[in-house]
Amino acid sequence: MLTKEKIAEAFKALQDNICEQLENVDGAKFHQDLWERPGGGGGRTRIIRGKHIEKGGVNFSAVEGALPDKISKAIGIDGGQFFATGVSIVLHPVNPLVPIIHMNVRYFEMDNGVWWFGGGIDLTPHYIVPDEARFFHSMLKQTCDKHQAEYYPKFKKWADDYFYIKHRKETRGIGGIFFDRLSSNDGFTKTQRFDYVLDVGNTFCPIYLKLLTDNMDKPFSETQKKWQHIRRGRYVEFNLVWDKGTKFGLDTDGRTESILMSLPAIANWEYNHQPEPDSEEAFTLEHLVKDMDWLSYNPE
Amino acid sequence: MLTKEKIAEAFKALQDNICEQLENVDGAKFHQDLWERPGGGGGRTRIIRGKHIEKGGVNFSAVEGALPDKISKAIGIDGGQFFATGVSIVLHPVNPLVPIIHMNVRYFEMDNGVWWFGGGIDLTPHYIVPDEARFFHSMLKQTCDKHQAEYYPKFKKWADDYFYIKHRKETRGIGGIFFDRLSSNDGFTKTQRFDYVLDVGNTFCPIYLKLLTDNMDKPFSETQKKWQHIRRGRYVEFNLVWDKGTKFGLDTDGRTESILMSLPAIANWEYNHQPEPDSEEAFTLEHLVKDMDWLSYNPE
Repeated sequence: MLTKEKIAEAFKALQDNICEQLENVDGAKFHQDLWERPGGGGGRTRIIRGKHIEKGGVNFSAVEGALPDKISKAIGIDGGQFFATGVSIVLHPVNPLVPIIHMNVRYFEMDNGVWWFGGGIDLTPHYIVPDEARFFHSMLKQTCDKHQAEYYPKFKKWADDYFYIKHRKETRGIGGIFFDRLSSNDGFTKTQRFDYVLDVGNTFCPIYLKLLTDNMDKPFSETQKKWQHIRRGRYVEFNLVWDKGTKFGLDTDGRTESILMSLPAIANWEYNHQPEPDSEEAFTLEHLVKDMDWLSYNPE
Repeated sequence: MLTKEKIAEAFKALQDNICEQLENVDGAKFHQDLWERPGGGGGRTRIIRGKHIEKGGVNFSAVEGALPDKISKAIGIDGGQFFATGVSIVLHPVNPLVPIIHMNVRYFEMDNGVWWFGGGIDLTPHYIVPDEARFFHSMLKQTCDKHQAEYYPKFKKWADDYFYIKHRKETRGIGGIFFDRLSSNDGFTKTQRFDYVLDVGNTFCPIYLKLLTDNMDKPFSETQKKWQHIRRGRYVEFNLVWDKGTKFGLDTDGRTESILMSLPAIANWEYNHQPEPDSEEAFTLEHLVKDMDWLSYNPE
């Protein structure tokens, strides 16, 4: 039987595996903080300040207890005991030619038997490279297609809608997949949903290690580093203004330092910054829009 | 008669006066963008990137039209034509020994005769200096006391409660005054409220020019600059997560670049940053709490 303990163990193993692979490439080691939640449960926050990863977090948590009022309202469940576990990753690379990546897999259950999975992976290149965008989306599609033909198109659209910086009228990056409340609806078993979510988690390394190793040693200019800092400003804006997970965590007295590991080491804001016409920066900005079909996109 | 046009003209003149005085000290000039609001009205956004002010905005706006639904809900007024005008300032200095300052004065009215004023000034020192905190609060008290004995204690408390970074359990800085919905309640006339609000606006320069000129040429270390960037990260967190004005503006399709002029040129986030025990940074952090009586505070 697929218990919550088994799911949490699998997520822990996923965290271990991802950290090990990232350490092998970067050379630096993660710093780990173990923490406990006053109401029950806790986590392992792991932070890296590396040679290639300027700042990154790979966090695991498994928390439980009486369902807090605010969460109860937000998810429309009337009290009881909850359990929630997940892995959350955000990596901000040194080299602006390497994209920022975010991944999350999570499981939630109530003592009355209600349960669901959620998660996703999305990519925020400082410079959009169509070949890399195609690689990224095809990897996600491949993982999704192994489980359900509808997963990729549905969750790709969900990511476009979710990772949207409304006040900039820009997407955060080139999207990816996002899903929530995957349960026994549509005839799925818990094991089938879990297998899918774990497969998503296991797609993280093949995707990011390629994008990282392909680009991390490329030379870059001051202009490119500056642009990276401005794009990171947008990342901060999304996370603090629009990201439901972040707001929710901060609002329900979550562990602030673990939640805000997603913020970059350095970000810039410049009043009314506009990239040069026909520049690579302008190309990127023009393509930060919803509903791009990156699998078949050809800029020619 | 005190019309909305007169109030807007006075706010414009306040903006002009403050910009001129800041330019005289800094040496740099403000860049001005005139903008129009699609639904009616517009503004003058003025941004400075100076020798002493690393990034700052002194904005005026006067907007009008049909009351947008979201605003209608938020303020509990059922439709109609609105008019809103105000001046908003945020200055991020180069020298970490100079504090960040924020000021806002604003007026709102509906075509059914409802009107009110709001505003405030608050100070965010990167390094708290008790003498400067006393100077700042005594200037505010003096301005308030000219109008109403209750203003200072009431609005000082309001600022403590408003400029609070809940997820950090820190105040943004040493507070100041904050007020909203000052209307004909408590027997005040519109002219009396207006005189007070304008006096608050006119207190900005005597306060900030002193804090700026006293400190802007002092030498500072890399450590102090680094700490400034971390404190700016907190400023960003407050503005994007908790500031009602910012959230509201972004949510109701306000002019993003004018709203986000409050963000610093550079901000840093470091995982779980803790100042050295007994350092000036630790002293500052320990004093970022509500209900400090800065007028009589003595650290000895």
